[in-house]
Amino acid sequence: MKKIYLDCAASMPIRDSSLKVINESMKEDYANPSALHKLGRNLSKKIEEAREDILESIKGEEHGKVVFTSSATESNNLIIQGLQFQKDDIIFYSSADHASLVGPLEYLRKERGIILKELPLRKGNIEVESFLKNLDQKVKMVVMSHVNNHTGNRQDIANICQTIKSFRPNCHIHLDAVQSYSKYSINLNEILADSLTISSHKIGGPKGIAALFIKSGVEIDPLLIGGGHEAGIRASTLAAPLIFGFLEAIKEAFRSQSQEINHVKELNQLARSILSSDKDITFPFYNDSNSDYILTVLTPGVSTDILVRHLEIEDIYCSTSSACSSKVRSRSKVLEALGLDEKLHKNILRLSFSVFNTKDDVETACNRLLVHYKDLRNISN
Amino acid sequence: MKKIYLDCAASMPIRDSSLKVINESMKEDYANPSALHKLGRNLSKKIEEAREDILESIKGEEHGKVVFTSSATESNNLIIQGLQFQKDDIIFYSSADHASLVGPLEYLRKERGIILKELPLRKGNIEVESFLKNLDQKVKMVVMSHVNNHTGNRQDIANICQTIKSFRPNCHIHLDAVQSYSKYSINLNEILADSLTISSHKIGGPKGIAALFIKSGVEIDPLLIGGGHEAGIRASTLAAPLIFGFLEAIKEAFRSQSQEINHVKELNQLARSILSSDKDITFPFYNDSNSDYILTVLTPGVSTDILVRHLEIEDIYCSTSSACSSKVRSRSKVLEALGLDEKLHKNILRLSFSVFNTKDDVETACNRLLVHYKDLRNISN
Repeated sequence: MKKIYLDCAASMPIRDSSLKVINESMKEDYANPSALHKLGRNLSKKIEEAREDILESIKGEEHGKVVFTSSATESNNLIIQGLQFQKDDIIFYSSADHASLVGPLEYLRKERGIILKELPLRKGNIEVESFLKNLDQKVKMVVMSHVNNHTGNRQDIANICQTIKSFRPNCHIHLDAVQSYSKYSINLNEILADSLTISSHKIGGPKGIAALFIKSGVEIDPLLIGGGHEAGIRASTLAAPLIFGFLEAIKEAFRSQSQEINHVKELNQLARSILSSDKDITFPFYNDSNSDYILTVLTPGVSTDILVRHLEIEDIYCSTSSACSSKVRSRSKVLEALGLDEKLHKNILRLSFSVFNTKDDVETACNRLLVHYKDLRNISN
Repeated sequence: MKKIYLDCAASMPIRDSSLKVINESMKEDYANPSALHKLGRNLSKKIEEAREDILESIKGEEHGKVVFTSSATESNNLIIQGLQFQKDDIIFYSSADHASLVGPLEYLRKERGIILKELPLRKGNIEVESFLKNLDQKVKMVVMSHVNNHTGNRQDIANICQTIKSFRPNCHIHLDAVQSYSKYSINLNEILADSLTISSHKIGGPKGIAALFIKSGVEIDPLLIGGGHEAGIRASTLAAPLIFGFLEAIKEAFRSQSQEINHVKELNQLARSILSSDKDITFPFYNDSNSDYILTVLTPGVSTDILVRHLEIEDIYCSTSSACSSKVRSRSKVLEALGLDEKLHKNILRLSFSVFNTKDDVETACNRLLVHYKDLRNISN
């Protein structure tokens, strides 16, 4: 039985080209990039080039620098915990966002007396006009995801950032671009973000490496203190092979960006077309501007925990929620923030695609999903 | 020209077995270990087994748990920043230790009013008796390295820990075992440490993964906040392939522990025997109990910065200092803490070995070192 993996937003299978680079680099690049001898200096130089390449991929050359971290969670924590906030400073955010944004923000609220305010959402999309009136001097940061990892909602981020900055030029905008980077254009000449998180394993690179873009002039305290690596922002021996593997995945993703998105768009359309043959099944957050890589499905009357189990018996894999908050389930704060009726929280399923999925995969998976849905609904009725 | 790499304490070349496991795992284990479906659960189970294996390797099964981190720097920061200290609490440490210990401790001093006191050293060895009299109620932590990364000094750690604990049972002992783990026995039934750091790339595993042992009952605040991974102590998607590669390196290192140490002991003896043919060259921190993996060499009258450059032209690689503090050189606080006359700080060279070095390597390297030393000394005289 062929494995059908439709959980690519949780982690994407690694690209062959990336794995090849990692393999070679782990063999050859064994020195410590901080070593002063030639082996170290050469590695350090290659890492600087990777940093420049990544900066270029987001048109960030004139805007700031890239710091390597071990995960998107670390990138988000580094910026959120690293900025110097005062008691009663206000931060706009969304409970619908990833735990690595919501978690450190709640920590700031509890430990440093920051005030958190929810970004107004409509079907998952930020309504910038309706929160502008609350954008007073006390608002020091707005935290947003370019693409929401649960719903695929893709924000009109250039416009939102420009609007915020035109009212509050000094308000720090942090953008989690984990689900959009290399899939949709990120141009820092247009997107006025002060910091931005990207991750390797969501785009076909290895787990254990990620990056944080930081705008020039933004000062942050480090989380990891030690040998002065990364200009004092993040101590630790740089994991050179992971950085080079990440870069290779980036290069491939950008080279084939338009083919990949066209392919995934077809998969998403196909899934919607098959699943909507059952009139009860809907796509509560879907709209034209959504990321094609994520499709949230509502299956009324059937718990998706059970549905997912039935599918996995047939080697078909998808999620009821994001992997990162999967172990702390109950009533979903995420779905609540997205305005979904609490009764339906247990009926949400996420399909997420990559270039590695075929139409056959999606057809098989969706047809089996329909069969199980009908069966389970009959049992529960 | 064959590369001769004698900087294994900075980073050891990867073991073939580890690389093989990483390669397979990166291909196969693409799911997110936090995913609730079978692929995620299976990965999560394998990671738990790896955790148990590592715990067993330090006889820690009955004492606590292992948390995976991205680096020894992160492990050290996690415990030092994570413990709840009060103003005026005293911590004993050594400026001769790694920057990832000294850095976060100095942060605690500056930001939280902790008082730092130096462990008394004699030729790099902790003189436990002479600091016991200062071990009052205010001393909340003692931070030590099992093996010093600059000098190879190996502390009689079981005895030191027992002495501390017999005076102050509640004093937290944190041990950096990065340079000793898998090389020398670490038995937590005898070594009464409350936390302990180990690292993968120092023992032939991949860069980007490390671990922290934490004794049961020790509560720490996380550095990385997010999806509740690692029992809330460290959020981030677990880099399963790196964990499995780390474990494979551990297994191989333990399997061949006695052969490897015998081999490295011979290399160290050979180096000392060749180098001491020049009567000016000495080994200022060497003693019988030292780690055989590290040999510090004093070359009076010749700057080791220049010596290292001459050697690297011949593809022979060693260090003047630890890679992690190599970019912040001047007068060395480390060497000062080790009691070395400031005039000699620029004359220190570190050779560090692994099972991958041959006797021929060491013979060639040391003979070339002697030649360059004599040449350079003649020039400067």
